[in-house]
Amino acid sequence: MEPQEHVAGLKAEIEHELSSFFEAKTGSIQDGTVRTIAELVRDYTLRGGKRIRPILLVLGHDLFEGHDENVVKASISIEISQSYFLIQDDIMDQSPMRRGMPSFHVELYDKFFSGEKDGKRLAESIGVIASDLAESYCHQVLFESGISDKQANIGDSELSSIFEVTGNGQLIDVFSPFQKEFKTNDLIRLHLWKTARYTVQGPLVMGARMSLREKNLDQLSYFGNLAGVAFQIYDDVLGLFGEQGEIGKSIKSDVNEGKRTLLMLKAIENSSESDARFISDCLRSGNVSDDEFNRLKHIVESSGSLDYSTNLVEKLNRRAKEYLSEVDGNPEIKKILSWVSDFIIRRKN
Amino acid sequence: MEPQEHVAGLKAEIEHELSSFFEAKTGSIQDGTVRTIAELVRDYTLRGGKRIRPILLVLGHDLFEGHDENVVKASISIEISQSYFLIQDDIMDQSPMRRGMPSFHVELYDKFFSGEKDGKRLAESIGVIASDLAESYCHQVLFESGISDKQANIGDSELSSIFEVTGNGQLIDVFSPFQKEFKTNDLIRLHLWKTARYTVQGPLVMGARMSLREKNLDQLSYFGNLAGVAFQIYDDVLGLFGEQGEIGKSIKSDVNEGKRTLLMLKAIENSSESDARFISDCLRSGNVSDDEFNRLKHIVESSGSLDYSTNLVEKLNRRAKEYLSEVDGNPEIKKILSWVSDFIIRRKN
Repeated sequence: MEPQEHVAGLKAEIEHELSSFFEAKTGSIQDGTVRTIAELVRDYTLRGGKRIRPILLVLGHDLFEGHDENVVKASISIEISQSYFLIQDDIMDQSPMRRGMPSFHVELYDKFFSGEKDGKRLAESIGVIASDLAESYCHQVLFESGISDKQANIGDSELSSIFEVTGNGQLIDVFSPFQKEFKTNDLIRLHLWKTARYTVQGPLVMGARMSLREKNLDQLSYFGNLAGVAFQIYDDVLGLFGEQGEIGKSIKSDVNEGKRTLLMLKAIENSSESDARFISDCLRSGNVSDDEFNRLKHIVESSGSLDYSTNLVEKLNRRAKEYLSEVDGNPEIKKILSWVSDFIIRRKN
Repeated sequence: MEPQEHVAGLKAEIEHELSSFFEAKTGSIQDGTVRTIAELVRDYTLRGGKRIRPILLVLGHDLFEGHDENVVKASISIEISQSYFLIQDDIMDQSPMRRGMPSFHVELYDKFFSGEKDGKRLAESIGVIASDLAESYCHQVLFESGISDKQANIGDSELSSIFEVTGNGQLIDVFSPFQKEFKTNDLIRLHLWKTARYTVQGPLVMGARMSLREKNLDQLSYFGNLAGVAFQIYDDVLGLFGEQGEIGKSIKSDVNEGKRTLLMLKAIENSSESDARFISDCLRSGNVSDDEFNRLKHIVESSGSLDYSTNLVEKLNRRAKEYLSEVDGNPEIKKILSWVSDFIIRRKN
C-alpha cells in the first residue's frame, strides 16, 4: 500500500473512533446545558483537521508492534487535546476564526450571550470550562480504550507531560512581548515547546512507548522535534503566503495578532531601518490595510526572509529523516513516517 | 489516638509531600519565566488550606488497607487540583481575594502587568495557563508516587471523572443566572457537582478504590455526597455570618458576587415581597453598603432561612454518618471519618 493510502486508512479509523466517543459521551449526559456544551465540543472537534497527531501516535506504536484497534481508540486523546488547546489559544489571542468558522468562544457568545451584560466575559468563561472538559475527556479515552493498565499509565504520563510542556510554551509566548530581546533561538525554543511537542514528538513517543517494545527513543524524539519545528515554520509561511480560502482564517490574522514569526524576525534583521520599523509597526497595529499587508509581504520576500524560512524547513525535514533512518522499527512504517514528514511541509492548509 | 491527632498527623504528612513535590518541580525548571510561574503555583498551593481532600483520600484508602506512604504521595493530586479550580474560579467570578491574600490573577497583574495595555487580560491568560499547569501536575504526582500501575490507573480515571463533574458544575453555575427558575433542587444539584464531588465524595472513593479491596462503595458515596453538600451549605453560612478575619475573603464578597446560596433562596421564598425584592437587588448590586448588608443578614435570620440552612446541615451530617456506619471497613478509620464530617460543619474558616 502507498503511504498516502495507509495514512488515509488511519485517518478514517480515527474519525470513526472520534465520532463513537462523542456519540457515547453526549448520549450519556442528562443535563441539557451540559449536553449542549459537550455537543459544541464534539462539533468543534469533528469540524475538520488533518488528524496528524493521532496518526503519528498510531504510527509510533506500529513501528514496534502490530496494529491494534485499542491503540487507535486511545490515540484520539491527543486529537481531543487539540480542542483543549485551540479553544484557550483563541480566547487568549482574541482570534475570531478557527478552521474557517467562528472560534469557540465567539460561537458561544453568538449563541448564548449576544447583547448580554458581561456577555463577552461569560462566553470566554464557558469557553475555558469547555476546554477543561475536553481535557478531562483526553484522559478518559485512555482508560476506556481497552489498552492494558501499563499502556494506559505510560500513555497518561506522556500526555500529562505533553500538556505541561505545551503550557510552558504558552507562558513563554504570552510573556514574549515583554522580553527585551526575542531572538531566533527563543523562537525555535517556543516552537519546540508550544508546537513540536504536542504535534509530532509527543504523539510519536507516546505511541512508541505504548508498544512496550520501543527502541531508539532518542532518535525518534529528534525526528519529532525537527519535523515539529519545520511544521510550525511552514505553518507561519502558509499563514502569510497561503490561500485565504484554504488556511481557515484571515490571511492577515497572524500579522494582526502581532505574531513574531521567523519570517518577521529575519525580515527585521535583514532589511533597512525604515522597513524594519514598518514591520514592527504592522505587528503592533492590530489592523493592517491591504496596502500595508502587501508591502509587508514584499519586504519579507525581498529581504530573503521567505527563502530563509523555506530553506530551513527543507533542511530540518532532511535532518529529521536522517534520524528516522536510524530507528530500528518496521520499515513499512518508517516509509510512511517519512512521507508524513514531507506532507506536513507541502500541505496547503 | 484521638481522631483530631490522627488527622493532624495526616495533614503533616501531606504538607511534607506537597513541599517535596513542588521543591522537585520548581528545582527542575531551567527557564526563568516558567519557574517563576511554577513558584507562584507552589506558593498559592502551600498558602494554607485545610487539606481536607487529600486527608479524605488517604482515609478512604486506609478504611480497607494499611496506611501506605505512596498513597499519601498520590493524595496530593487532589489538593493541587484545588489550585487548578480556585485560580479559574476567581478569574470567572472576578474575585479579588482568596485565603486572605490577593487571588492568583490579581497577584499576576500586580507583579507583571500593572499599568500595561491589556494588562488585565494578560494576567487572566497567564492565570488560566498556570491553572492548566497545576492540572497537569495533578496527574503527574499519581505516576510519580510509587503506587502500582493498577492503582495509578484507577486513581487517574477517578481524577478525570472528578474534573469532568466539577467542570459540569461550573457550567451550570455560570449559566444559572440565565435560567428562568433556579430552585432549591437546582442548587443542591449544583452543590453535588461543583463541591461534593471534588471535596468529599470524589477523594474518598478515589482513595477507597486505590486500596483495591474496597467494599460498600455506594454507602461511601452517599456519605461523601451528603457530607459534601453539608460542607457547601455551611460554607455559605460562614460566608455571610463568619468572622471577616477568619474566612479569608471579604464578608460581603458572596453577596457582591451575586451568589444565590440556599440562605438567599429560602429568605426570598419566606419573606415579604419588598424584603424579597431587596435581597434580589442586593445580589444584583455588586457593591452593597454596610447598612444594606446588615439589613440583608437581618432578613435572612428573621425569615427563618438561617435556621433552615443550619438545621439542614445537621440533618445531612446525621444522615451521612448513618451511611458511614454501614461501611464494612476499619472501625478506627470510620471513627475518624465521622469526626471529619462533624469538623467540616463546625469549622471557623
